[in-house]
Amino acid sequence: MKRRIGILTSGGDCPGLNAAIRGVARASYALFDAEIVGFRGGYRGLIDGDYQEMTKAQFSNILTMGGTILGTSRTPFRDMRVVGEDNVDKVAQMKANYEKLGLDCLVTLGGNGTHKTANMLSQEGLNVIGLPKTIDNDIYGTDFTFGFHTAVEIATDVIDRIHTTAASHNRVMIIEIMGNKAGWLTLYAGLAGGADAILIPEMPYDIKEVAKVVEKRAEANKNFTIIAVAEGAMDVEEARLKRKEREARRQASGHTFVATKVAKELQEVIDVEARTVIPGHILRGGTPCAYDRVLSTQFGVHAAQLISNGTYGVTVALDGERIIHNSLSDVAGVAKPVTPSHYMVKTARSMGISFCESDD
Amino acid sequence: MKRRIGILTSGGDCPGLNAAIRGVARASYALFDAEIVGFRGGYRGLIDGDYQEMTKAQFSNILTMGGTILGTSRTPFRDMRVVGEDNVDKVAQMKANYEKLGLDCLVTLGGNGTHKTANMLSQEGLNVIGLPKTIDNDIYGTDFTFGFHTAVEIATDVIDRIHTTAASHNRVMIIEIMGNKAGWLTLYAGLAGGADAILIPEMPYDIKEVAKVVEKRAEANKNFTIIAVAEGAMDVEEARLKRKEREARRQASGHTFVATKVAKELQEVIDVEARTVIPGHILRGGTPCAYDRVLSTQFGVHAAQLISNGTYGVTVALDGERIIHNSLSDVAGVAKPVTPSHYMVKTARSMGISFCESDD
Amino acid sequence: MKRRIGILTSGGDCPGLNAAIRGVARASYALFDAEIVGFRGGYRGLIDGDYQEMTKAQFSNILTMGGTILGTSRTPFRDMRVVGEDNVDKVAQMKANYEKLGLDCLVTLGGNGTHKTANMLSQEGLNVIGLPKTIDNDIYGTDFTFGFHTAVEIATDVIDRIHTTAASHNRVMIIEIMGNKAGWLTLYAGLAGGADAILIPEMPYDIKEVAKVVEKRAEANKNFTIIAVAEGAMDVEEARLKRKEREARRQASGHTFVATKVAKELQEVIDVEARTVIPGHILRGGTPCAYDRVLSTQFGVHAAQLISNGTYGVTVALDGERIIHNSLSDVAGVAKPVTPSHYMVKTARSMGISFCESDD
Amino acid sequence: MKRRIGILTSGGDCPGLNAAIRGVARASYALFDAEIVGFRGGYRGLIDGDYQEMTKAQFSNILTMGGTILGTSRTPFRDMRVVGEDNVDKVAQMKANYEKLGLDCLVTLGGNGTHKTANMLSQEGLNVIGLPKTIDNDIYGTDFTFGFHTAVEIATDVIDRIHTTAASHNRVMIIEIMGNKAGWLTLYAGLAGGADAILIPEMPYDIKEVAKVVEKRAEANKNFTIIAVAEGAMDVEEARLKRKEREARRQASGHTFVATKVAKELQEVIDVEARTVIPGHILRGGTPCAYDRVLSTQFGVHAAQLISNGTYGVTVALDGERIIHNSLSDVAGVAKPVTPSHYMVKTARSMGISFCESDD
Repeated sequence: MKRRIGILTSGGDCPGLNAAIRGVARASYALFDAEIVGFRGGYRGLIDGDYQEMTKAQFSNILTMGGTILGTSRTPFRDMRVVGEDNVDKVAQMKANYEKLGLDCLVTLGGNGTHKTANMLSQEGLNVIGLPKTIDNDIYGTDFTFGFHTAVEIATDVIDRIHTTAASHNRVMIIEIMGNKAGWLTLYAGLAGGADAILIPEMPYDIKEVAKVVEKRAEANKNFTIIAVAEGAMDVEEARLKRKEREARRQASGHTFVATKVAKELQEVIDVEARTVIPGHILRGGTPCAYDRVLSTQFGVHAAQLISNGTYGVTVALDGERIIHNSLSDVAGVAKPVTPSHYMVKTARSMGISFCESDD
Repeated sequence: MKRRIGILTSGGDCPGLNAAIRGVARASYALFDAEIVGFRGGYRGLIDGDYQEMTKAQFSNILTMGGTILGTSRTPFRDMRVVGEDNVDKVAQMKANYEKLGLDCLVTLGGNGTHKTANMLSQEGLNVIGLPKTIDNDIYGTDFTFGFHTAVEIATDVIDRIHTTAASHNRVMIIEIMGNKAGWLTLYAGLAGGADAILIPEMPYDIKEVAKVVEKRAEANKNFTIIAVAEGAMDVEEARLKRKEREARRQASGHTFVATKVAKELQEVIDVEARTVIPGHILRGGTPCAYDRVLSTQFGVHAAQLISNGTYGVTVALDGERIIHNSLSDVAGVAKPVTPSHYMVKTARSMGISFCESDD
Repeated sequence: MKRRIGILTSGGDCPGLNAAIRGVARASYALFDAEIVGFRGGYRGLIDGDYQEMTKAQFSNILTMGGTILGTSRTPFRDMRVVGEDNVDKVAQMKANYEKLGLDCLVTLGGNGTHKTANMLSQEGLNVIGLPKTIDNDIYGTDFTFGFHTAVEIATDVIDRIHTTAASHNRVMIIEIMGNKAGWLTLYAGLAGGADAILIPEMPYDIKEVAKVVEKRAEANKNFTIIAVAEGAMDVEEARLKRKEREARRQASGHTFVATKVAKELQEVIDVEARTVIPGHILRGGTPCAYDRVLSTQFGVHAAQLISNGTYGVTVALDGERIIHNSLSDVAGVAKPVTPSHYMVKTARSMGISFCESDD
Repeated sequence: MKRRIGILTSGGDCPGLNAAIRGVARASYALFDAEIVGFRGGYRGLIDGDYQEMTKAQFSNILTMGGTILGTSRTPFRDMRVVGEDNVDKVAQMKANYEKLGLDCLVTLGGNGTHKTANMLSQEGLNVIGLPKTIDNDIYGTDFTFGFHTAVEIATDVIDRIHTTAASHNRVMIIEIMGNKAGWLTLYAGLAGGADAILIPEMPYDIKEVAKVVEKRAEANKNFTIIAVAEGAMDVEEARLKRKEREARRQASGHTFVATKVAKELQEVIDVEARTVIPGHILRGGTPCAYDRVLSTQFGVHAAQLISNGTYGVTVALDGERIIHNSLSDVAGVAKPVTPSHYMVKTARSMGISFCESDD
């Protein structure tokens, strides 16, 4: 059996992309007569016909490598159908390049946006398989995405390092962790790092409740407090606004980072020394942890098995110990937010960790 | 509600024990009026009445700490019922100390052996809850035990380091990884570290097949080979023997480590330079990785919730994203070996990784 | 011989403080009949008489611990002589508490500010020994301060992680590294992390030269650029201003961080996507690296040897492989800036790494 | 100015080799018109004429890589002058290949053995520059060799991990650290890891003194002991033998590792549970730490500067903060053992760390 496979990585880079690419390639070469075409810079490469015929050797020594050997870019789904100023019909071009290259299928590695475009291409008749990648873990239908646990490990290491400064200086330390829409990364790292309060987008905070956490610790003779706050966390008032209004207000207030906003507001409410730490891109770089190497490899190999069976229009997923696949049309673009009833939230609450919601 | 809780850690030490102890304690203090008694050195402490009344402060600052603040020991299950030379009836003493201390329940953290004794005590009428701890991941009824993923991360780091030496010196490097009965740790670390062959107790190897892996790589111009071998791996011939015969033969041959045996046999079959690496206890020490901190905390908190509900005679377990509990009488001492049909084995095979079984 | 030793840590916390404290204590207990008094929160503890009589056990298990078990605070030297609103004569109080406690000497761990106060107390007649601690490495008279190499390791790890994102997204990544007055940390981490340009306070940059680095790499088909910039870096124009003017201008421009200023200016000059990473406090937290554990231990032990000999009014220092001591009056508060003729600067230049100075 | 440079790496692989190679290359390309020839597998490549013309691109992305991109081998100095069975005059061939390739100089990266051959080639008229590489740190004339501090960091991490097992199980843990002739690595890692006893080749041990360390700790209610032992450590009796006799006796006793010998002997003297850990090759693999990346880069750049000046017959070295060079004829093959009067030994003794020498 011969198969020509196109492969691309789209959206923000993420630990495990190369391990997943290697998994697809090694299993494809082992299972059937595979030819692999790599598109450069995500969907942009498929649109522009910017690609390379890959050799077996290119998939060697990449298991431990961060980033993506194919490069990536962000082409939002909402722009895909738009014929822009340059009069380019992107969807038509992607289909044309797929045909021209004689591909049997296309494997796309990315997050919710990537999956929406993948689903559209699938509905346009291409054979597409998606692999769920994101440090945000906010893709519906899979227990975990790859990249997530590496980011949790790094964010936890950051909190560990901050602990000693917090304790030595009697400070409130506010650590901002990536996650604009979903709080998973902050929730896991906060629990693993021993945070005292966790602020996430899904559960708007009340600064007075944050202050109570600090005061309660002071009463228990704990001289410092660690607060993990997701990039996209918002207070109760902001939560009532529409997204654009919220962003405008945030910008007007001069707070690029939510951590600095929390620090300022907290110091207005109580007399403490609050400092911020914003690890930013550190969380998505470097070699994947062993967990993510295994998961990405399993995802990649599963994709090759699907190709071998001629199963398309699906995205690969983790279910307990097993690797499964869901229909792209069912899950593409469906987000998975943290819910107050999730086991992790209950665990945190049971230990006295506060989400600082309003008690109204 | 008031509850007096006894707690002990038994068997080999393991990353996450202190995080789990902290989870039990913090959630117990938060959920009800808890008093906690810590037994020193595992079941030995319960037998001898060697314990301390724990204070809240003793559970602070232990989340990241390796080992166990309670100490541990190995008292094999088979010795529990035996009244020894000293005429001590261990089971009677454990029950007597449980009564004397006025305990409402006993939380035991350990592996298969620990669970067997926990089950026996449960059947003797004590209120017992087990938490599944082991770097071997060989406990039935849970997706993963805590400690396992930390050990996988460390073992993978070891393989990563060995890669550069292997490539620089054109060597076959044989890395022996803990796991006397179960190959999970070797399987996961082997996959994460990019091993070319994986030898585990559940799938006896044929040295000729190991040689074929090396030769096949040489044909593909790969100048080195990485072999991950579990401590308890055995060749086809040894697998036919009873355990005692096997141990006797191994001892007679002078091979304390299976890695040196594989190296020697391999060099008898083909002309290569083979070296061994035996990380040993390194794999079970130090701070738990974030994954294990979260899992142990969840397990510990779940135990407190069970106490709060008065649910006993169970052991806590992971099922996908959820924490559940199984009846001790169903799972105590039931091992979970790697099976040839497991997803991880299939994944490895699909990538051309060999388990070196005889092809007879 | 009996000696009562006071000990305090002052200024920002730093990896190795506890290892140095342990070194002083263990060697003091071994070499003579030592009693140790720990002041809480740096000089503030000495001023307020906030102290504890330390026991041997308190110095156990702290070798690997970040931060300081004594706590720290920042009391600037310029405020020491001032009798404040509260009418407190701080110097008189420090002397009085030293006498009241019957101390034979005072060991102070800190940076340039700490050493200035230590020298003043020495000139007031107290027996003082200083230990040079700072992640900035800007203390005159010692090859290295402790804490520096740990911070270099962490900053290098940050740059490593950013590399993969930079390469995957074709970006200019600007990493801001602690160091307000001295560029050592940025210089070492920049060289270790493979930065293409290094901007430090001692060598004001010209944004046009930064742009040239990016363009030159683009010409060589390198699609990304890594710029390491010290917290206190300034451009040529800012360098002409007095410090207060510079700070006022920086504040007015809305750039809390120099990295965002460089990113904005760079994008005004050339068409690139520039992103910033600001690890901040991460660089000073967590367990000291082995190098710093050895150095702090050696420093601490040397201090004990000095006490044993009755040598005071000195600060401990590293000279090649040897530990020496300098007179406090010679080195207290003398800064050690990076000079253009330093070996590290020449090394970097020889490799084509740019400091982006104006070529006027 | 045009220069054709031959480069080779010889002896055991070591972190920093690639960083040093990159330093030579990048500075050579920047400072003059350089052509670089890489010999494969150390001196063997020079003898056999096994080489490649290197391109600039081959020196990219290797700064963080462990091992050596050139490969290495061990050709002992004592065999160099010997014309073997194959009738090959190795020295003549090396000279002939050097001439044939039109080299202006040869840069050799290696330890004491490598330097001896380098010196011989220099005396035969070739232009040779040596770079001191070894995790053993036993090269005369330099404060430190590159690779050493990375190995110290890894060995210290190993000891850290073992601490928790030792404390949880009340054990004596004996950790064997590479270093056949020199104890530097064991000495530094022992101090950094908080070992209670340090056994090194330069200071033969008495097992009774080892037992005293364990007993003294037990008296102080410390329930565990950590012993760092160098691969080449020997007891007082062995020290009286010639090397061959010693090896014969060791082999006859069945102790491949000195750690197992110490464990057995210790358990014959006192009643303790002693376990061994033998990290082996782990210590020399993986990415170099920041310290070693800086040092190797400085060494490599210095070599390029020497070539630029036409200075040959030297080996590069570290002296405090400066990089210097020594005459090959002065230092080649001169070992640097640990001496009892060295600052590190005194530091350790002052803290009560024992070297377990006989007190006769």
